[in-house]
Amino acid sequence: MSITMFQASVPVLLQGLGNLRQIIGKAQAHAAEKQIDPAVLTGARLFPDMLPLARQIHITTDTAKGCAARLADVEAPKFDDVETTFDELDARIQKTIDYLKTFKPEQIDGSEERRITLKMRSGPIEFSGLNYLVYFALPNFYFHITTTYDILRHNGVELGKLDYLGKLNA
Amino acid sequence: MSITMFQASVPVLLQGLGNLRQIIGKAQAHAAEKQIDPAVLTGARLFPDMLPLARQIHITTDTAKGCAARLADVEAPKFDDVETTFDELDARIQKTIDYLKTFKPEQIDGSEERRITLKMRSGPIEFSGLNYLVYFALPNFYFHITTTYDILRHNGVELGKLDYLGKLNA
Repeated sequence: MSITMFQASVPVLLQGLGNLRQIIGKAQAHAAEKQIDPAVLTGARLFPDMLPLARQIHITTDTAKGCAARLADVEAPKFDDVETTFDELDARIQKTIDYLKTFKPEQIDGSEERRITLKMRSGPIEFSGLNYLVYFALPNFYFHITTTYDILRHNGVELGKLDYLGKLNA
Repeated sequence: MSITMFQASVPVLLQGLGNLRQIIGKAQAHAAEKQIDPAVLTGARLFPDMLPLARQIHITTDTAKGCAARLADVEAPKFDDVETTFDELDARIQKTIDYLKTFKPEQIDGSEERRITLKMRSGPIEFSGLNYLVYFALPNFYFHITTTYDILRHNGVELGKLDYLGKLNA
């Protein structure tokens, strides 16, 4: 009795990305309703040396596509970090969703022992597939979605925990 | 080839809780060094109707102990939400770590199909053990650790992503 690497990765990432689309959709509607320049929100940061919202979304999507690709041992498509508007950011999330949907369980399953090497600023770090997924990819993924949420809440966008969790798979 | 529910839960929660201790330790040191009343940080929020830092930590620890207990089908100890200082919050995290360390893999493994019912504001919601873990408990857990981090970064505490990820298990 156990779970598979696919179950613990691709559908989980898809859920988070879908929720992120809903969150930025609400932010875009909020900006329209309050006549706020949307660029104020997409460029917002929680501190001057933190990354702005648009970059949080670039990194969320990079983390998601990199995770599936590394576990499946394929090359992830490179996305240039050019999206700045809500529509562009939404399209990037959708493009990532489309990419993740191409993965079949048999490409990911059995990757728990696969050696995965990440180039970090401090040098390369090598993980097992399992440790890469649960100690690196998923915490990072949720970090950038939560920080997107926190930036928007800090700027008065009305969001709740259920926007972050999304429709729960019972 | 697969992973176990224990591998995907208890050690992952322990890693996050250990990282959270490091993060609030740095916040406490920052307050001491800059002669900031620590209560300013433990009471800080990103928006008036968001929860302050101390509550983020209460909920992180509740999520962690509730997750292990529900998967093992045991009753989690109840912690009163009385901790407000950094030392008290640190002790609560440590108490949660001690509790999680009592779980043996055989208590958690095989829980992927266990029915788990959560009382939500909107009514009860029923999950499989797997869906509870990957769509509810872990995203929630990371949400409150990240928001703790974001509150502190927003208040000028010098933290980096590696404080959030912690020592990586390669």
